[in-house]
Amino acid sequence: MEFLIKENEYRERIERVRKVLRKRNLDALYLTNATSIFYLTGFSFISTERPAALVIPIDGKITFIGPLLEREHVPLATKIIEEVKTYLDYPGMKHPIEHFAEFLKEMKLANKRIGIDNKTGVAGMWGYKGPPLKQKLPDAKLVDMADLVPSMRLVKSPAEIALIKESAKWANLAVSLLQEYATEGTWDVEVALTASLDASSIMKKTLGANYEPLRSILPISAGFRGQIGEMSAIPHAIGTKHKIKSGDVIIAEAGVEIGGYSCELERTMIVGKPSVKHKRYFDVMTKAQDAAIKKIMDGVECSEVDKASMNVFKKAGLDHLVMHHTGHGLGLEGHEPPWLDIGNREKLKAGMVVSCEPGIYEVGFAGFRHSDTVLVTEEGFELLTYYPKDIDSLTIT
Amino acid sequence: MEFLIKENEYRERIERVRKVLRKRNLDALYLTNATSIFYLTGFSFISTERPAALVIPIDGKITFIGPLLEREHVPLATKIIEEVKTYLDYPGMKHPIEHFAEFLKEMKLANKRIGIDNKTGVAGMWGYKGPPLKQKLPDAKLVDMADLVPSMRLVKSPAEIALIKESAKWANLAVSLLQEYATEGTWDVEVALTASLDASSIMKKTLGANYEPLRSILPISAGFRGQIGEMSAIPHAIGTKHKIKSGDVIIAEAGVEIGGYSCELERTMIVGKPSVKHKRYFDVMTKAQDAAIKKIMDGVECSEVDKASMNVFKKAGLDHLVMHHTGHGLGLEGHEPPWLDIGNREKLKAGMVVSCEPGIYEVGFAGFRHSDTVLVTEEGFELLTYYPKDIDSLTIT
Repeated sequence: MEFLIKENEYRERIERVRKVLRKRNLDALYLTNATSIFYLTGFSFISTERPAALVIPIDGKITFIGPLLEREHVPLATKIIEEVKTYLDYPGMKHPIEHFAEFLKEMKLANKRIGIDNKTGVAGMWGYKGPPLKQKLPDAKLVDMADLVPSMRLVKSPAEIALIKESAKWANLAVSLLQEYATEGTWDVEVALTASLDASSIMKKTLGANYEPLRSILPISAGFRGQIGEMSAIPHAIGTKHKIKSGDVIIAEAGVEIGGYSCELERTMIVGKPSVKHKRYFDVMTKAQDAAIKKIMDGVECSEVDKASMNVFKKAGLDHLVMHHTGHGLGLEGHEPPWLDIGNREKLKAGMVVSCEPGIYEVGFAGFRHSDTVLVTEEGFELLTYYPKDIDSLTIT
Repeated sequence: MEFLIKENEYRERIERVRKVLRKRNLDALYLTNATSIFYLTGFSFISTERPAALVIPIDGKITFIGPLLEREHVPLATKIIEEVKTYLDYPGMKHPIEHFAEFLKEMKLANKRIGIDNKTGVAGMWGYKGPPLKQKLPDAKLVDMADLVPSMRLVKSPAEIALIKESAKWANLAVSLLQEYATEGTWDVEVALTASLDASSIMKKTLGANYEPLRSILPISAGFRGQIGEMSAIPHAIGTKHKIKSGDVIIAEAGVEIGGYSCELERTMIVGKPSVKHKRYFDVMTKAQDAAIKKIMDGVECSEVDKASMNVFKKAGLDHLVMHHTGHGLGLEGHEPPWLDIGNREKLKAGMVVSCEPGIYEVGFAGFRHSDTVLVTEEGFELLTYYPKDIDSLTIT
């Protein structure tokens, strides 16, 4: 079994890009975003201060331009990229952006119309400095195409959905192990690493020799991200000093990379006997999530889904505890469009995959949020994650 | 014990910023870079599609502007930030950048000269879209100050160096465990997670209740990043299907977050009896690293360090196997300036901390690279990492 997008699907994606280029009268597309490059070619690399780009001419060779250290990496990862042009390193005797201008000249693109996802011509990370590409390529016409690949990524293909579904299985195992290991007196980091280790090990044995993480160093990231006890009221907590103790609300989460894709699964758990207040907040949160999920269907405005959960919070008189919208698209990145947000008038389409995760947070007490991965369908929705959601199943005793 | 930069050091950093602002006749600094914000305040947050910025007026309140979900997070993390202004979420009924323009008006900065690290006014991740800040704040004069905080970060303070030294201890433990656990038939991901778990657990027990990771979900990331066997010849490999087998060259690495800072430690290891060719490449690599480290001293041009390792590779007739320069600054990010690169004429200064990691890579055979963290001093250098480097110590039998 192979847990990858197949070569022909990458070729179809490239063909869709070229169709748009022709329609827009462009001679090439120039991409600096590593996720976009992965989406079109299957080539995953670590984006650093060293400039790198993918150039897709309408009829020339698909070319990766970047640092020498990626030269031999490209052909091991993809057959889609037909040529690799490299410079030794950044900043170098000659600045990489000057090499890039020369590479584009060699490709006969120096005076052409080039769609580009980033005006500067580089991702520009970690202390990178340099002139914009245009300055070194004055005769080219650079046209903003930042939205092209992200818009292609909105609706997932059957193959992408299959990878996210496979991811959901292993996220279920990982969250199950988190729940099993999160006992009083443990440090969330230890529980996270133990669950990630055990789930990764079992997953590799199950999926077999062909499985490898393509975009993440660790295939499974399971843990609590510091959302332990009072820190569970901080939706984007990172770490915590506190060990897990009785009475804590803890928020467990797992992502699992399969062929570059991941689901999102999060569960609020209660350590020890839930209090009346725990039960009330938990109950309202699950009802808000249910209401939002039930709204999901092809053709529904994203704002409607956000409204559905907010209405439940309002009715319960807990809307002052809401700190974020209901969800976001997912697949290749932590967050992606479409946003399930009151201000988003865009319509859901069958094949989109979103998180549904309305939450309430009371500072000094706790936070309550489940997150599920939901596929939008013609008839409504399909839940891709399926870990139990009720308070009895999520009480740790 | 506290493993943090102290409040007064953050206040000194802010004072240095304000001095520059006054000198440049600017009324405020506006920062979107999460690392810069952490450097000046100790507040660490997850940078997402939701716009966030730190505003430092020359004499008004230091203000974090960002999504509601960070409102209660800020005061838990820092006393440096004096005010927090938030919007509910992105994209929202009103776009966050419009809120930001209003926040700046409330701060009486709407028609002032504002230094900015990013013209757009947002970090702009994960599918974010929006107009540039200038469009919503037409009377402000935005002045490029992208280089201010990165330039402050170049020379490390005694407190920063102490954190990196503490990090080096635990990286030593983690690499030691990687070597112990990396036996024939193991999957590098399992070895990585087991070593990370054990080292994290021991570190927490040793450093005590006050230790917490501030910027990383996992305090220790130890592993091989796919650099196993033939894949060790790919410097930026990510994953591999292959399990560790006899005859493999493997490259172990560890980073450990202490108070937001990390060292870098990497070691080339050989599984089973090294061949003559293994020994030759290993020997040349360690000599190149020695030559480069010995060059490091206050006042020396960065290019000289790169030349020193390259000269060793040239003499050995192996310079065609070089794929990258000798090293880079480090501390808060994976890579930082200064670059130990042939094209970098900047001079090293006492207090800079750099990686020294010249490598050689033969496709179809293996890669050879050690990385050490080196402090630049007046008299020369101080090695902050100290794991054994010789082939006997690094042979796994």
